[in-house]
Amino acid sequence: MEQKAFQEYYPDQFNYCYGCGQLNEHGLQIKSYWDGDETVCLFQPRPYHTAIPGYVYGGLIASLIDCHSTGSAAAAAYRAAGRAMDTEPALRFLTASLHVDYLRPTPIDSPLEVRAHVKETKGRKVVVVSTLSAHGEVCARGEVVAVQMPEHLLR
Amino acid sequence: MEQKAFQEYYPDQFNYCYGCGQLNEHGLQIKSYWDGDETVCLFQPRPYHTAIPGYVYGGLIASLIDCHSTGSAAAAAYRAAGRAMDTEPALRFLTASLHVDYLRPTPIDSPLEVRAHVKETKGRKVVVVSTLSAHGEVCARGEVVAVQMPEHLLR
Repeated sequence: MEQKAFQEYYPDQFNYCYGCGQLNEHGLQIKSYWDGDETVCLFQPRPYHTAIPGYVYGGLIASLIDCHSTGSAAAAAYRAAGRAMDTEPALRFLTASLHVDYLRPTPIDSPLEVRAHVKETKGRKVVVVSTLSAHGEVCARGEVVAVQMPEHLLR
Repeated sequence: MEQKAFQEYYPDQFNYCYGCGQLNEHGLQIKSYWDGDETVCLFQPRPYHTAIPGYVYGGLIASLIDCHSTGSAAAAAYRAAGRAMDTEPALRFLTASLHVDYLRPTPIDSPLEVRAHVKETKGRKVVVVSTLSAHGEVCARGEVVAVQMPEHLLR
């Protein structure tokens, strides 16, 4: 199965986000995919993404949850509209709010898996909930309210 | 006035956090200070910290709010105990939860100012609320629940 990541469909001029832009050479360049009704993103933290020794700093966890969730909101909006992600007009989402509960220290020595699904859609707002796991254990939970970007910002 | 930043008091082995560690050469190395009963942190985003063109990506905003808030919780705990920040045992805080409301796109072309204060203290938990501003305009609001790190983790 050769799936393209959600972020590979972003229009070039909107593909420089530090978290998810595929054209930001300094950034994290996360990649998100469908897995049934869930979306999934795997990310290997770098050694310098540390908090206390051996564990990932909270800002990276927040970044992964944020960017994976707005990408998931976009993918879900295309799916709900029965549209392929490479069709115009582009659907992109901004973060209105981000909530992260840090349940336990997140080890830095393995890939982190963010799994998300849409909890609720209200007009242009999509609420995306997620877990972030390491070694199969949930280390953080996220909830993002994503809002569809106004068309004039996309031009 | 020559104030040392809160983070300059962190014990060396806990001063490698990507967000606030002064010894993490890849990291943001934020610096937080008292300003009356508030704490303040100024940070100049780098050009690659972009979201959509001209604006800061949300993960950086979350990181600044997170690390400035845990640093502020520590500083407030020392102050409440009537202790200087270079006295033992060290007081360090972890993030239990992070909430950020993104009120408007945050411009990338000026220093960001995070201002925080303690809203409430309950035992080992400190709730820190904050604003993040650019050009004097509040762009995001944060609320962090910080928990004092257990002594055994600090050894």
